[in-house]
Amino acid sequence: MMAQSSANDKCLNITTLDAKDIRWPTSLGAHGSDAMHTDPDYSCVYVTIHTAEGIRGYGMTFTLGRGTDIVLMAVKAMKRFVENRTTASIYQNFAKFWREITSESQLRWIGPEKGVTHLAVAAIVNALWDLWGKIRAVPVWRLLTEMEPEELVSTIDFRYITDAITPEEVIDILRKNKTLRKTKTEDLIENGYPAYTTQVGWLGYSDDLIRSLCKKYLRAGFTAFKIKVGQDLENDIKRCKLVREEIGWDNKLMVDANQIWDVNTAIEWMEKLKDFQLLWIEEPTSPDDVLGHKKIAEALKKYNIGVATGEMCCNRVLFKQFLQANALEFCQIDSARIGGVNEILSVYLMAKKFGVKVCPHAGGVGLCEMVQHLQMWDYTSVSCSKQERMVEFVDQQHEQFLHPAVINENACYAAPTAPGYSTELKPEAVSMFEYPGGSEWQRMFAEEIFKNE
Amino acid sequence: MMAQSSANDKCLNITTLDAKDIRWPTSLGAHGSDAMHTDPDYSCVYVTIHTAEGIRGYGMTFTLGRGTDIVLMAVKAMKRFVENRTTASIYQNFAKFWREITSESQLRWIGPEKGVTHLAVAAIVNALWDLWGKIRAVPVWRLLTEMEPEELVSTIDFRYITDAITPEEVIDILRKNKTLRKTKTEDLIENGYPAYTTQVGWLGYSDDLIRSLCKKYLRAGFTAFKIKVGQDLENDIKRCKLVREEIGWDNKLMVDANQIWDVNTAIEWMEKLKDFQLLWIEEPTSPDDVLGHKKIAEALKKYNIGVATGEMCCNRVLFKQFLQANALEFCQIDSARIGGVNEILSVYLMAKKFGVKVCPHAGGVGLCEMVQHLQMWDYTSVSCSKQERMVEFVDQQHEQFLHPAVINENACYAAPTAPGYSTELKPEAVSMFEYPGGSEWQRMFAEEIFKNE
Repeated sequence: MMAQSSANDKCLNITTLDAKDIRWPTSLGAHGSDAMHTDPDYSCVYVTIHTAEGIRGYGMTFTLGRGTDIVLMAVKAMKRFVENRTTASIYQNFAKFWREITSESQLRWIGPEKGVTHLAVAAIVNALWDLWGKIRAVPVWRLLTEMEPEELVSTIDFRYITDAITPEEVIDILRKNKTLRKTKTEDLIENGYPAYTTQVGWLGYSDDLIRSLCKKYLRAGFTAFKIKVGQDLENDIKRCKLVREEIGWDNKLMVDANQIWDVNTAIEWMEKLKDFQLLWIEEPTSPDDVLGHKKIAEALKKYNIGVATGEMCCNRVLFKQFLQANALEFCQIDSARIGGVNEILSVYLMAKKFGVKVCPHAGGVGLCEMVQHLQMWDYTSVSCSKQERMVEFVDQQHEQFLHPAVINENACYAAPTAPGYSTELKPEAVSMFEYPGGSEWQRMFAEEIFKNE
Repeated sequence: MMAQSSANDKCLNITTLDAKDIRWPTSLGAHGSDAMHTDPDYSCVYVTIHTAEGIRGYGMTFTLGRGTDIVLMAVKAMKRFVENRTTASIYQNFAKFWREITSESQLRWIGPEKGVTHLAVAAIVNALWDLWGKIRAVPVWRLLTEMEPEELVSTIDFRYITDAITPEEVIDILRKNKTLRKTKTEDLIENGYPAYTTQVGWLGYSDDLIRSLCKKYLRAGFTAFKIKVGQDLENDIKRCKLVREEIGWDNKLMVDANQIWDVNTAIEWMEKLKDFQLLWIEEPTSPDDVLGHKKIAEALKKYNIGVATGEMCCNRVLFKQFLQANALEFCQIDSARIGGVNEILSVYLMAKKFGVKVCPHAGGVGLCEMVQHLQMWDYTSVSCSKQERMVEFVDQQHEQFLHPAVINENACYAAPTAPGYSTELKPEAVSMFEYPGGSEWQRMFAEEIFKNE
């Protein structure tokens, strides 16, 4: 394995950044429904970075339908940071680029580093990583793995986190793990990385459907299952029981409340579910409530129920506090909510320092495709462990991608081999589902399946 | 003083919600410049709620120029919650309305309750309070003051804060203070509410300008002054010295770093300014960093420098934690960042419970106009004290308002008398500064003072 340096990279000339609003009508089947998001239409803002040399970078951020157009507008407001510059001018000081795009002096007021503007940053930055992988002709997980520690550090903006981790500490972590890279890489290529499924227990599903899905995913080799809770306690007890009946007690069961509870309600509710041997309670309350999660974590410790959160954690500053406060046991980064790969790297590294396991959120459009790369890098270079670590898997929209995430016969993510970040959609996915002009949307408007807003 | 109830309110029929992007070219004079926002164009999204009866509600959220169009789009995505319904259906369960608009099942993904979408909520909700004041023919500070505790509580969504404060505790606070309302109201009408000025020390200003502004504001009766710091330590020392020379040591001096530092840098930098007898350091680091502020507050305690933050604190959940962690001494709510009056009331009430002084942020377009109402309600009904409490005042854009904030001869905000929330712009302000079509913008584009993006 040869370490590369961006100074040796082929330098491309970025011409334009193009962005699209793409939506799938998933609300029609209650797929992805939970206590807070009752009717999601899985969607994304899809970014294409064009170069004069013809190589393209694709990136995205996941959304739930309405509001995708707002994030799209934010992407367009930021595209001037990318257009008409060389790739070298970005990758040779990627942290500086990241600071520029997140700290634009007028735009930052409507963030900063959170919500719409940060989702927009994620889509753009993810496209830049896809492009970088293509320049080096490797998948992003190998791009990260094969980087020298100093180069990897140069991509991270340490603003606001130096009280938790410094560049020197990161270089230390990466250097120490260097000897493991080769065997860990080979292991990934041979065996892949463990996945768990959320597919068995969306709130909108019937009992029969839940049972048959449990059977299906057991047959597929899954050993960890997650269901949604929080709308009705009796129903939650019934569904936990039902799933335990199907999957037994040797497999792992997790529950997800999607932020429905106040702090004390979370504790009381979970005490009623304590006998189901739950590995974690996910998003018990507001994603912003570090101290609330800390209180819940302390209360549930005696039941061996861990607290998990992170898919809607808005940036590295919040993650830092969750880790500093010992408020979570499982850190669920999302590949498209915080500001793209660069910021997520810092979260993995802080989690390593604080001894917390990263179990990424995935399942939305492109989230599985992207986050598998990051978690595989964690395995080769950061935690170097699969112990109680796994990546969420939801079997939706993968067929829309040119290089979809693949689950192998052991219910593991297969290591991606195509250069880039696995973010390119098939051309027909774009032409059918671009909103509102795509052919499928036009058909659904005409047939009055959906109303054009 | 007769308490009213929404059941007796005249019920209006809301027809449409109209929203506009309005910007002033303040970057031309370096007005409002600080360490992070070097070239702001003071702007707002301006909401007008029309009723069949002809009464209108006006509301706004403050922005810095670019990005105002993004917030505008978010307002438009939410206007269906307001259009074609009666005012009674909103005010009789205002907390429920607030929950609906902040928890829209697809839009909440791109927040939740933060950044662009929450600024949009603020603009809409603020317009509804202006309309409510007009229905009762009182300024909003009196609307709040004259409400029965139970009715006031019914406007607040307690989700995620019941571990810090309950509706019952709020009713208790308000009931206990009821006897003070009359004298406090009379005091406000006679004397107004203390203001402080930030006008003397924007980073872009020259020494001579700073000196002459100190003299001007001293003459105007001001006793508290705030300057920007954080770009250059030597320069900060020089400017603190310069201002102290002008204002002496009996007047209050505060400094504002606008989030420029990491946690440890903040502590080290402020140690160098410890001899200037500073009342507070404002926004020393990321607005999201509760634990970081706590560490800074503890380190600066021995110098009697308080920590202040809040203008970019994204919602009540963050404020709750700042208060629970004892991470600030001065709570600087902003009238247009978190979700409008309803959510801000909950922050005032939590601050009361935790014994923290509220000193609101103001100065942006409409912020002084709005926040004076809230702080006056705090005085009549919540803290009932002016002790070490004051409202920021910046003398910009007030002439654009029909009922501008007025500073009296004692450098106090005069109690507003016009019905509503003081949020209505003059018609010519809208026609001149609407972006990009307003007459002033068209002139500036033609004269190439600004480029039309």
